[in-house]
Amino acid sequence: MLELYHSINSVCAQKVRIALAEKGLDCKEHLMTLQGDQFTPDYLKLNPNGVVPTLIHDGKPVIESSVILYYLDEAFPQHSLMPQDPYQRATVRLYNKMIDEYVHTACMTLSFATAFRARMARMTEEEREAEFAKAPNQKRSDIKRDVTAHGLQSHYTVDAIEQHEKLLSWMEAGLKQAPYLAGSAYSLADIAVVPYILRLELLKLARMWEKRPGVAGWWERIKARPSTQATILQRMSDKDWAPFKVIEPDPWPQVQRLLHAA
Amino acid sequence: MLELYHSINSVCAQKVRIALAEKGLDCKEHLMTLQGDQFTPDYLKLNPNGVVPTLIHDGKPVIESSVILYYLDEAFPQHSLMPQDPYQRATVRLYNKMIDEYVHTACMTLSFATAFRARMARMTEEEREAEFAKAPNQKRSDIKRDVTAHGLQSHYTVDAIEQHEKLLSWMEAGLKQAPYLAGSAYSLADIAVVPYILRLELLKLARMWEKRPGVAGWWERIKARPSTQATILQRMSDKDWAPFKVIEPDPWPQVQRLLHAA
Repeated sequence: MLELYHSINSVCAQKVRIALAEKGLDCKEHLMTLQGDQFTPDYLKLNPNGVVPTLIHDGKPVIESSVILYYLDEAFPQHSLMPQDPYQRATVRLYNKMIDEYVHTACMTLSFATAFRARMARMTEEEREAEFAKAPNQKRSDIKRDVTAHGLQSHYTVDAIEQHEKLLSWMEAGLKQAPYLAGSAYSLADIAVVPYILRLELLKLARMWEKRPGVAGWWERIKARPSTQATILQRMSDKDWAPFKVIEPDPWPQVQRLLHAA
Repeated sequence: MLELYHSINSVCAQKVRIALAEKGLDCKEHLMTLQGDQFTPDYLKLNPNGVVPTLIHDGKPVIESSVILYYLDEAFPQHSLMPQDPYQRATVRLYNKMIDEYVHTACMTLSFATAFRARMARMTEEEREAEFAKAPNQKRSDIKRDVTAHGLQSHYTVDAIEQHEKLLSWMEAGLKQAPYLAGSAYSLADIAVVPYILRLELLKLARMWEKRPGVAGWWERIKARPSTQATILQRMSDKDWAPFKVIEPDPWPQVQRLLHAA
Protein backbone atom coordinates (compact mmCIF):
# COMPACT_ATOMS: atom_id res chain seq x y z
CA MET A 1 0.00 0.00 0.00
CA LEU A 2 1.10 3.54 -0.79
CA GLU A 3 0.52 6.55 1.45
CA LEU A 4 1.48 10.14 0.73
CA TYR A 5 2.00 12.96 3.20
CA HIS A 6 1.72 16.13 1.15
CA SER A 7 0.12 19.52 0.60
CA ILE A 8 -1.52 20.85 -2.55
CA ASN A 9 0.76 23.85 -3.17
CA SER A 10 4.06 22.22 -2.20
CA VAL A 11 6.20 22.04 -5.35
CA CYS A 12 7.92 18.86 -4.18
CA ALA A 13 4.62 17.17 -3.41
CA GLN A 14 3.27 18.19 -6.82
CA LYS A 15 6.06 16.27 -8.56
CA VAL A 16 5.20 13.11 -6.70
CA ARG A 17 1.45 13.43 -7.34
CA ILE A 18 2.16 13.81 -11.06
CA ALA A 19 4.34 10.69 -11.09
CA LEU A 20 1.68 8.68 -9.23
CA ALA A 21 -0.93 9.77 -11.78
CA GLU A 22 1.31 9.00 -14.77
CA LYS A 23 1.86 5.51 -13.38
CA GLY A 24 -1.82 5.02 -12.55
CA LEU A 25 -1.09 4.43 -8.86
CA ASP A 26 -3.54 5.07 -6.05
CA CYS A 27 -2.46 6.12 -2.59
CA LYS A 28 -3.92 7.05 0.74
CA GLU A 29 -3.42 10.78 1.20
CA HIS A 30 -2.50 12.68 4.36
CA LEU A 31 -2.96 16.39 3.68
CA MET A 32 -0.69 18.60 5.80
CA THR A 33 -1.23 22.28 6.58
CA LEU A 34 2.55 23.02 6.78
CA GLN A 35 1.74 25.51 9.50
CA GLY A 36 3.46 23.46 12.17
CA ASP A 37 2.21 19.92 11.57
CA GLN A 38 5.40 19.11 9.66
CA PHE A 39 7.42 19.59 12.85
CA THR A 40 5.49 17.25 15.17
CA PRO A 41 7.61 14.45 16.69
CA ASP A 42 5.54 11.79 14.89
CA TYR A 43 6.04 13.37 11.48
CA LEU A 44 9.75 14.03 12.12
CA LYS A 45 10.15 10.29 12.73
CA LEU A 46 8.97 9.68 9.16
CA ASN A 47 10.74 12.69 7.66
CA PRO A 48 13.59 14.08 9.81
CA ASN A 49 13.83 17.13 7.53
CA GLY A 50 10.29 18.24 8.42
CA VAL A 51 9.17 18.74 4.84
CA VAL A 52 6.66 17.20 2.43
CA PRO A 53 6.29 14.90 0.63
CA THR A 54 6.86 11.61 2.41
CA LEU A 55 5.87 8.43 0.59
CA ILE A 56 5.12 5.34 2.67
CA HIS A 57 5.32 2.06 0.75
CA ASP A 58 4.20 -1.00 2.71
CA GLY A 59 5.10 0.80 5.92
CA LYS A 60 8.54 2.05 4.87
CA PRO A 61 9.10 5.80 4.41
CA VAL A 62 10.82 7.17 1.31
CA ILE A 63 11.79 10.86 1.53
CA GLU A 64 13.05 13.60 -0.79
CA SER A 65 10.92 14.19 -3.86
CA SER A 66 13.59 13.38 -6.47
CA VAL A 67 14.44 10.14 -4.67
CA ILE A 68 10.72 9.30 -4.48
CA LEU A 69 10.40 9.85 -8.25
CA TYR A 70 13.16 7.34 -9.05
CA TYR A 71 11.75 4.99 -6.41
CA LEU A 72 8.26 4.99 -7.91
CA ASP A 73 9.63 4.40 -11.39
CA GLU A 74 11.65 1.40 -10.23
CA ALA A 75 9.23 -0.13 -7.74
CA PHE A 76 6.34 0.15 -10.24
CA PRO A 77 7.77 -0.45 -13.73
CA GLN A 78 4.52 0.19 -15.67
CA HIS A 79 4.53 3.35 -17.87
CA SER A 80 8.28 3.92 -17.52
CA LEU A 81 9.25 7.51 -16.85
CA MET A 82 12.98 7.06 -17.52
CA PRO A 83 14.59 6.98 -20.99
CA GLN A 84 16.51 3.81 -21.92
CA ASP A 85 19.59 5.63 -23.24
CA PRO A 86 22.25 6.19 -20.51
CA TYR A 87 23.05 9.68 -21.80
CA GLN A 88 19.39 10.74 -21.66
CA ARG A 89 19.14 9.18 -18.21
CA ALA A 90 22.06 11.40 -17.18
CA THR A 91 20.06 14.38 -18.48
CA VAL A 92 17.11 13.45 -16.24
CA ARG A 93 19.50 13.32 -13.29
CA LEU A 94 21.08 16.67 -14.14
CA TYR A 95 17.62 18.30 -14.12
CA ASN A 96 16.73 16.76 -10.77
CA LYS A 97 20.11 17.74 -9.35
CA MET A 98 19.88 21.33 -10.58
CA ILE A 99 16.42 21.63 -9.04
CA ASP A 100 17.36 20.05 -5.73
CA GLU A 101 20.53 22.10 -5.34
CA TYR A 102 19.56 25.48 -6.74
CA VAL A 103 16.07 25.95 -8.18
CA HIS A 104 14.13 24.68 -5.18
CA THR A 105 15.58 27.25 -2.78
CA ALA A 106 15.29 29.91 -5.49
CA CYS A 107 11.58 29.08 -5.86
CA MET A 108 11.01 29.34 -2.12
CA THR A 109 12.83 32.68 -2.15
CA LEU A 110 10.66 34.18 -4.90
CA SER A 111 7.45 32.72 -3.43
CA PHE A 112 8.06 34.18 0.03
CA ALA A 113 9.24 37.49 -1.46
CA THR A 114 5.88 37.82 -3.26
CA ALA A 115 2.79 35.61 -2.85
CA PHE A 116 3.48 34.12 0.59
CA ARG A 117 4.64 37.40 2.10
CA ALA A 118 1.13 38.57 3.01
CA ARG A 119 0.47 35.59 5.30
CA MET A 120 3.80 36.16 7.05
CA ALA A 121 3.05 39.89 7.39
CA ARG A 122 -0.25 39.14 9.11
CA MET A 123 1.58 37.27 11.89
CA THR A 124 3.13 39.02 14.88
CA GLU A 125 6.93 39.08 14.96
CA GLU A 126 6.85 36.48 17.75
CA GLU A 127 4.65 34.12 15.71
CA ARG A 128 6.90 34.49 12.67
CA GLU A 129 10.04 33.87 14.68
CA ALA A 130 8.45 30.85 16.33
CA GLU A 131 7.68 29.40 12.87
CA PHE A 132 11.19 30.14 11.53
CA ALA A 133 12.86 28.71 14.64
CA LYS A 134 11.13 25.32 14.31
CA ALA A 135 12.62 24.48 10.90
CA PRO A 136 15.45 21.90 10.94
CA ASN A 137 17.14 23.78 8.07
CA GLN A 138 17.98 27.19 9.48
CA LYS A 139 19.53 28.45 6.24
CA ARG A 140 16.09 28.30 4.67
CA SER A 141 14.65 30.20 7.63
CA ASP A 142 17.31 32.93 7.20
CA ILE A 143 16.17 33.42 3.61
CA LYS A 144 12.46 33.42 4.53
CA ARG A 145 13.13 35.97 7.28
CA ASP A 146 14.94 38.29 4.89
CA VAL A 147 12.52 38.10 1.96
CA THR A 148 9.51 38.45 4.27
CA ALA A 149 11.05 41.71 5.49
CA HIS A 150 12.36 43.06 2.18
CA GLY A 151 10.34 41.37 -0.58
CA LEU A 152 12.02 41.38 -3.99
CA GLN A 153 14.47 44.02 -2.71
CA SER A 154 16.16 41.31 -0.61
CA HIS A 155 19.68 40.49 -1.85
CA TYR A 156 18.61 36.83 -1.97
CA THR A 157 16.37 37.47 -4.98
CA VAL A 158 19.32 38.23 -7.30
CA ASP A 159 20.54 34.65 -7.11
CA ALA A 160 16.97 33.29 -7.13
CA ILE A 161 16.25 34.97 -10.47
CA GLU A 162 19.61 33.82 -11.85
CA GLN A 163 18.89 30.18 -10.97
CA HIS A 164 15.51 30.30 -12.71
CA GLU A 165 17.11 31.93 -15.75
CA LYS A 166 19.71 29.16 -15.85
CA LEU A 167 16.96 26.52 -15.71
CA LEU A 168 14.95 28.23 -18.47
CA SER A 169 18.03 28.61 -20.72
CA TRP A 170 18.90 24.99 -20.25
CA MET A 171 15.33 23.93 -21.03
CA GLU A 172 15.23 26.12 -24.15
CA ALA A 173 18.49 24.63 -25.45
CA GLY A 174 17.15 21.09 -24.95
CA LEU A 175 13.69 21.81 -26.32
CA LYS A 176 15.26 22.99 -29.59
CA GLN A 177 16.40 19.38 -30.08
CA ALA A 178 13.46 17.38 -28.74
CA PRO A 179 9.85 17.82 -27.55
CA TYR A 180 10.59 16.81 -23.95
CA LEU A 181 13.39 17.69 -21.58
CA ALA A 182 15.26 14.39 -21.85
CA GLY A 183 14.40 13.49 -25.44
CA SER A 184 11.41 12.30 -27.41
CA ALA A 185 9.42 10.96 -24.44
CA TYR A 186 7.94 12.59 -21.35
CA SER A 187 10.09 11.62 -18.34
CA LEU A 188 10.96 12.32 -14.73
CA ALA A 189 12.87 15.37 -16.02
CA ASP A 190 9.62 16.99 -17.18
CA ILE A 191 7.84 15.99 -13.97
CA ALA A 192 10.63 17.49 -11.85
CA VAL A 193 10.40 20.83 -13.63
CA VAL A 194 6.59 21.29 -13.95
CA PRO A 195 5.91 22.68 -10.45
CA TYR A 196 8.63 25.33 -10.79
CA ILE A 197 7.36 26.64 -14.12
CA LEU A 198 3.80 26.64 -12.77
CA ARG A 199 5.00 28.60 -9.74
CA LEU A 200 6.65 31.25 -11.94
CA GLU A 201 3.37 31.56 -13.84
CA LEU A 202 1.37 31.85 -10.59
CA LEU A 203 3.80 34.55 -9.42
CA LYS A 204 3.00 36.50 -12.64
CA LEU A 205 6.48 35.87 -14.04
CA ALA A 206 5.57 33.94 -17.20
CA ARG A 207 7.23 36.68 -19.23
CA MET A 208 10.54 35.07 -18.27
CA TRP A 209 9.91 32.73 -21.23
CA GLU A 210 8.29 35.17 -23.64
CA LYS A 211 11.44 34.99 -25.81
CA ARG A 212 11.81 31.24 -25.35
CA PRO A 213 9.42 29.53 -27.79
CA GLY A 214 10.66 26.06 -26.85
CA VAL A 215 9.72 26.53 -23.19
CA ALA A 216 6.42 28.23 -24.10
CA GLY A 217 5.37 25.35 -26.39
CA TRP A 218 6.44 22.71 -23.89
CA TRP A 219 4.49 24.45 -21.12
CA GLU A 220 1.30 24.55 -23.19
CA ARG A 221 1.60 20.80 -23.91
CA ILE A 222 2.39 20.03 -20.28
CA LYS A 223 -0.50 22.09 -18.92
CA ALA A 224 -2.92 20.22 -21.20
CA ARG A 225 -1.66 16.86 -19.95
CA PRO A 226 -4.22 14.97 -17.83
CA SER A 227 -1.73 14.36 -14.99
CA THR A 228 -1.01 18.10 -14.62
CA GLN A 229 -4.70 18.94 -14.70
CA ALA A 230 -5.81 16.22 -12.30
CA THR A 231 -3.04 16.43 -9.71
CA ILE A 232 -2.35 20.15 -9.63
CA LEU A 233 -4.69 22.57 -11.39
CA GLN A 234 -7.94 20.81 -10.55
CA ARG A 235 -6.75 20.00 -7.03
CA MET A 236 -6.25 23.65 -6.06
CA SER A 237 -9.13 24.91 -3.88
CA ASP A 238 -9.98 28.59 -3.48
CA LYS A 239 -7.72 28.58 -0.44
CA ASP A 240 -4.82 27.17 -2.49
CA TRP A 241 -5.36 29.82 -5.20
CA ALA A 242 -5.73 32.66 -2.67
CA PRO A 243 -2.04 33.60 -2.19
CA PHE A 244 -1.62 33.96 -5.97
CA LYS A 245 -4.84 35.91 -6.67
CA VAL A 246 -3.55 39.30 -5.62
CA ILE A 247 0.21 39.83 -5.48
CA GLU A 248 1.11 43.36 -4.51
CA PRO A 249 3.26 44.98 -5.75
CA ASP A 250 3.34 43.36 -9.22
CA PRO A 251 6.62 41.36 -9.15
CA TRP A 252 7.42 41.70 -12.87
CA PRO A 253 8.95 45.23 -12.97
CA GLN A 254 11.47 44.39 -10.23
CA VAL A 255 12.27 40.97 -11.74
CA GLN A 256 12.73 42.63 -15.12
CA ARG A 257 15.18 45.11 -13.57
CA LEU A 258 17.13 42.26 -12.00
CA LEU A 259 17.19 40.40 -15.33
CA HIS A 260 18.53 43.48 -17.12
CA ALA A 261 21.15 44.05 -14.43
CA ALA A 262 22.38 40.44 -14.61
CA MET B 1 36.36 5.34 -25.71
CA LEU B 2 36.41 6.87 -22.23
CA GLU B 3 38.39 9.96 -21.26
CA LEU B 4 38.59 11.53 -17.81
CA TYR B 5 39.53 15.09 -16.91
CA HIS B 6 40.48 14.97 -13.27
CA SER B 7 43.01 15.70 -10.52
CA ILE B 8 44.40 13.32 -7.94
CA ASN B 9 43.22 15.13 -4.78
CA SER B 10 39.78 16.19 -6.05
CA VAL B 11 37.19 14.33 -3.97
CA CYS B 12 34.73 14.23 -6.86
CA ALA B 13 37.33 12.86 -9.26
CA GLN B 14 38.31 10.22 -6.70
CA LYS B 15 34.78 8.80 -6.71
CA VAL B 16 34.83 8.39 -10.46
CA ARG B 17 38.30 6.78 -10.51
CA ILE B 18 37.10 4.25 -7.90
CA ALA B 19 34.02 3.40 -9.99
CA LEU B 20 36.12 2.96 -13.14
CA ALA B 21 38.46 0.60 -11.26
CA GLU B 22 35.58 -1.40 -9.72
CA LYS B 23 34.15 -1.87 -13.20
CA GLY B 24 37.52 -2.71 -14.75
CA LEU B 25 37.29 0.17 -17.23
CA ASP B 26 40.27 1.89 -18.80
CA CYS B 27 40.26 5.52 -19.78
CA LYS B 28 42.51 8.13 -21.25
CA GLU B 29 43.42 10.56 -18.47
CA HIS B 30 43.78 14.33 -18.63
CA LEU B 31 45.35 15.52 -15.38
CA MET B 32 44.39 19.08 -14.46
CA THR B 33 46.27 21.39 -12.08
CA LEU B 34 43.06 23.21 -10.95
CA GLN B 35 45.16 26.34 -10.69
CA GLY B 36 43.33 28.01 -13.55
CA ASP B 37 43.17 25.30 -16.23
CA GLN B 38 39.61 24.47 -15.19
CA PHE B 39 38.48 27.93 -16.32
CA THR B 40 39.90 27.94 -19.86
CA PRO B 41 37.25 28.44 -22.58
CA ASP B 42 37.93 24.97 -24.01
CA TYR B 43 37.41 23.24 -20.69
CA LEU B 44 34.32 25.34 -19.86
CA LYS B 45 32.80 24.07 -23.12
CA LEU B 46 33.03 20.53 -21.74
CA ASN B 47 32.13 21.46 -18.17
CA PRO B 48 30.38 24.85 -17.80
CA ASN B 49 30.79 24.66 -14.01
CA GLY B 50 34.60 24.73 -14.30
CA VAL B 51 35.14 21.75 -12.02
CA VAL B 52 36.53 18.21 -12.27
CA PRO B 53 35.76 15.49 -13.12
CA THR B 54 34.43 15.43 -16.65
CA LEU B 55 33.94 12.04 -18.30
CA ILE B 56 33.94 11.87 -22.08
CA HIS B 57 32.30 8.76 -23.54
CA ASP B 58 32.63 8.39 -27.30
CA GLY B 59 33.01 12.15 -27.60
CA LYS B 60 30.07 13.13 -25.38
CA PRO B 61 30.74 14.85 -22.03
CA VAL B 62 29.06 13.68 -18.83
CA ILE B 63 29.46 16.03 -15.86
CA GLU B 64 28.81 16.01 -12.11
CA SER B 65 30.42 13.14 -10.23
CA SER B 66 27.22 11.57 -8.88
CA VAL B 67 25.65 11.65 -12.34
CA ILE B 68 28.84 10.11 -13.78
CA LEU B 69 28.65 7.29 -11.20
CA TYR B 70 25.10 6.33 -12.24
CA TYR B 71 26.08 6.75 -15.90
CA LEU B 72 29.04 4.38 -15.65
CA ASP B 73 26.95 1.79 -13.84
CA GLU B 74 24.26 1.86 -16.54
CA ALA B 75 26.42 2.26 -19.64
CA PHE B 76 28.74 -0.56 -18.47
CA PRO B 77 26.59 -3.15 -16.67
CA GLN B 78 29.47 -5.47 -15.62
CA HIS B 79 30.13 -5.62 -11.83
CA SER B 80 26.94 -3.79 -10.91
CA LEU B 81 27.39 -1.09 -8.27
CA MET B 82 23.67 -0.60 -7.55
CA PRO B 83 21.52 -2.84 -5.32
CA GLN B 84 18.51 -4.51 -6.96
CA ASP B 85 16.05 -3.60 -4.21
CA PRO B 86 14.27 -0.25 -4.85
CA TYR B 87 14.48 0.74 -1.20
CA GLN B 88 18.25 0.16 -1.10
CA ARG B 89 18.57 2.04 -4.39
CA ALA B 90 16.81 4.97 -2.70
CA THR B 91 19.43 4.75 0.07
CA VAL B 92 22.24 5.06 -2.50
CA ARG B 93 20.51 8.15 -3.90
CA LEU B 94 20.05 9.71 -0.47
CA TYR B 95 23.80 9.37 0.18
CA ASN B 96 24.70 10.95 -3.14
CA LYS B 97 22.16 13.72 -2.58
CA MET B 98 23.37 14.47 0.94
CA ILE B 99 26.94 14.66 -0.33
CA ASP B 100 26.14 16.81 -3.35
CA GLU B 101 23.98 19.25 -1.38
CA TYR B 102 25.76 19.51 1.94
CA VAL B 103 28.90 17.42 2.53
CA HIS B 104 30.80 18.50 -0.57
CA THR B 105 30.77 22.20 0.33
CA ALA B 106 31.45 21.29 3.96
CA CYS B 107 34.53 19.32 2.86
CA MET B 108 35.80 22.24 0.78
CA THR B 109 35.25 24.51 3.77
CA LEU B 110 37.28 22.35 6.17
CA SER B 111 40.00 21.68 3.58
CA PHE B 112 40.55 25.38 2.83
CA ALA B 113 40.33 26.28 6.53
CA THR B 114 43.22 23.87 7.24
CA ALA B 115 45.40 22.03 4.69
CA PHE B 116 44.88 24.24 1.63
CA ARG B 117 45.18 27.48 3.57
CA ALA B 118 48.98 27.61 3.34
CA ARG B 119 48.98 27.69 -0.48
CA MET B 120 46.43 30.50 -0.48
CA ALA B 121 48.44 32.39 2.17
CA ARG B 122 51.56 32.25 -0.03
CA MET B 123 49.74 34.14 -2.80
CA THR B 124 49.41 37.91 -2.88
CA GLU B 125 45.94 39.28 -2.19
CA GLU B 126 45.63 40.17 -5.89
CA GLU B 127 46.51 36.61 -6.96
CA ARG B 128 44.01 35.15 -4.50
CA GLU B 129 41.25 37.49 -5.59
CA ALA B 130 41.99 36.73 -9.25
CA GLU B 131 41.59 33.01 -8.52
CA PHE B 132 38.36 33.52 -6.53
CA ALA B 133 36.88 35.83 -9.16
CA LYS B 134 37.28 33.28 -11.96
CA ALA B 135 35.00 30.64 -10.38
CA PRO B 136 31.53 30.32 -11.94
CA ASN B 137 30.09 29.58 -8.48
CA GLN B 138 30.73 32.72 -6.45
CA LYS B 139 29.13 31.32 -3.28
CA ARG B 140 31.98 28.82 -3.10
CA SER B 141 34.49 31.64 -3.57
CA ASP B 142 32.89 33.57 -0.68
CA ILE B 143 33.46 30.59 1.60
CA LYS B 144 37.05 30.06 0.39
CA ARG B 145 37.81 33.76 0.95
CA ASP B 146 36.48 33.64 4.50
CA VAL B 147 38.13 30.41 5.62
CA THR B 148 41.43 31.39 4.00
CA ALA B 149 41.35 34.53 6.15
CA HIS B 150 39.99 33.04 9.38
CA GLY B 151 40.78 29.30 9.29
CA LEU B 152 38.64 27.19 11.58
CA GLN B 153 37.52 30.37 13.40
CA SER B 154 35.40 31.22 10.32
CA HIS B 155 31.66 31.02 11.03
CA TYR B 156 31.37 28.71 8.00
CA THR B 157 33.13 25.90 9.85
CA VAL B 158 30.25 25.44 12.34
CA ASP B 159 27.92 24.19 9.60
CA ALA B 160 30.76 22.27 7.90
CA ILE B 161 31.39 20.24 11.05
CA GLU B 162 27.67 19.69 11.55
CA GLN B 163 27.24 18.30 8.01
CA HIS B 164 30.09 15.84 8.52
CA GLU B 165 28.62 14.80 11.87
CA LYS B 166 25.26 14.18 10.19
CA LEU B 167 26.93 12.03 7.54
CA LEU B 168 28.87 10.04 10.14
CA SER B 169 25.75 9.48 12.31
CA TRP B 170 23.80 8.32 9.31
CA MET B 171 26.61 5.95 8.28
CA GLU B 172 26.89 4.56 11.81
CA ALA B 173 23.13 3.88 11.96
CA GLY B 174 23.25 2.03 8.62
CA LEU B 175 26.45 0.12 9.38
CA LYS B 176 24.83 -1.35 12.50
CA GLN B 177 22.44 -3.17 10.13
CA ALA B 178 24.73 -4.11 7.23
CA PRO B 179 28.42 -4.17 6.25
CA TYR B 180 28.04 -1.58 3.47
CA LEU B 181 26.16 1.70 3.30
CA ALA B 182 23.28 0.46 1.18
CA GLY B 183 23.10 -3.13 2.39
CA SER B 184 25.11 -6.30 2.05
CA ALA B 185 27.02 -5.32 -1.09
CA TYR B 186 29.50 -2.54 -1.85
CA SER B 187 27.72 0.08 -3.99
CA LEU B 188 27.81 3.60 -5.38
CA ALA B 189 26.86 4.77 -1.86
CA ASP B 190 30.20 3.57 -0.50
CA ILE B 191 32.07 5.00 -3.47
CA ALA B 192 30.39 8.38 -3.02
CA VAL B 193 31.42 8.58 0.63
CA VAL B 194 35.02 7.25 0.49
CA PRO B 195 36.75 10.50 -0.56
CA TYR B 196 35.09 12.51 2.23
CA ILE B 197 36.11 10.09 4.97
CA LEU B 198 39.62 9.95 3.54
CA ARG B 199 39.73 13.75 3.55
CA LEU B 200 38.73 13.91 7.23
CA GLU B 201 41.52 11.46 7.98
CA LEU B 202 44.04 13.50 5.97
CA LEU B 203 42.92 16.61 7.86
CA LYS B 204 43.76 14.78 11.14
CA LEU B 205 40.08 14.53 12.09
CA ALA B 206 39.69 10.74 12.22
CA ARG B 207 38.77 11.07 15.88
CA MET B 208 35.32 12.13 14.65
CA TRP B 209 34.57 8.40 14.39
CA GLU B 210 36.46 7.17 17.44
CA LYS B 211 33.12 6.41 19.13
CA ARG B 212 31.57 5.01 15.96
CA PRO B 213 32.76 1.41 15.58
CA GLY B 214 30.58 0.84 12.50
CA VAL B 215 32.29 3.65 10.60
CA ALA B 216 35.73 2.65 11.88
CA GLY B 217 35.31 -0.96 10.73
CA TRP B 218 33.88 0.05 7.37
CA TRP B 219 36.76 2.46 6.80
CA GLU B 220 39.37 -0.23 7.52
CA ARG B 221 37.69 -2.59 5.01
CA ILE B 222 37.35 0.18 2.43
CA LYS B 223 40.97 1.31 2.75
CA ALA B 224 42.15 -2.26 2.17
CA ARG B 225 40.06 -2.56 -1.01
CA PRO B 226 42.17 -2.69 -4.20
CA SER B 227 40.16 0.12 -5.89
CA THR B 228 40.83 2.54 -3.00
CA GLN B 229 44.52 1.62 -2.96
CA ALA B 230 45.04 1.79 -6.72
CA THR B 231 43.04 4.90 -7.57
CA ILE B 232 43.66 7.08 -4.53
CA LEU B 233 46.34 6.10 -2.00
CA GLN B 234 48.90 4.77 -4.48
CA ARG B 235 48.14 7.55 -6.95
CA MET B 236 49.10 10.34 -4.54
CA SER B 237 52.56 11.73 -5.31
CA ASP B 238 54.69 13.61 -2.77
CA LYS B 239 53.14 16.78 -4.15
CA ASP B 240 49.61 15.44 -3.55
CA TRP B 241 50.53 14.45 0.01
CA ALA B 242 52.28 17.77 0.73
CA PRO B 243 49.27 19.88 1.85
CA PHE B 244 48.35 17.21 4.41
CA LYS B 245 51.85 16.56 5.79
CA VAL B 246 52.00 19.54 8.08
CA ILE B 247 48.75 21.20 9.11
CA GLU B 248 49.29 24.06 11.50
CA PRO B 249 47.63 24.62 13.90
CA ASP B 250 46.39 21.07 14.65
CA PRO B 251 42.70 21.25 13.61
CA TRP B 252 41.43 18.73 16.20
CA PRO B 253 41.19 20.95 19.32
CA GLN B 254 39.06 23.56 17.53
CA VAL B 255 36.89 20.91 15.83
CA GLN B 256 36.42 19.22 19.19
CA ARG B 257 35.31 22.54 20.70
CA LEU B 258 32.79 23.00 17.88
CA LEU B 259 31.51 19.44 18.37
CA HIS B 260 31.00 20.03 22.08
CA ALA B 261 29.25 23.35 21.43
CA ALA B 262 26.84 21.78 18.91
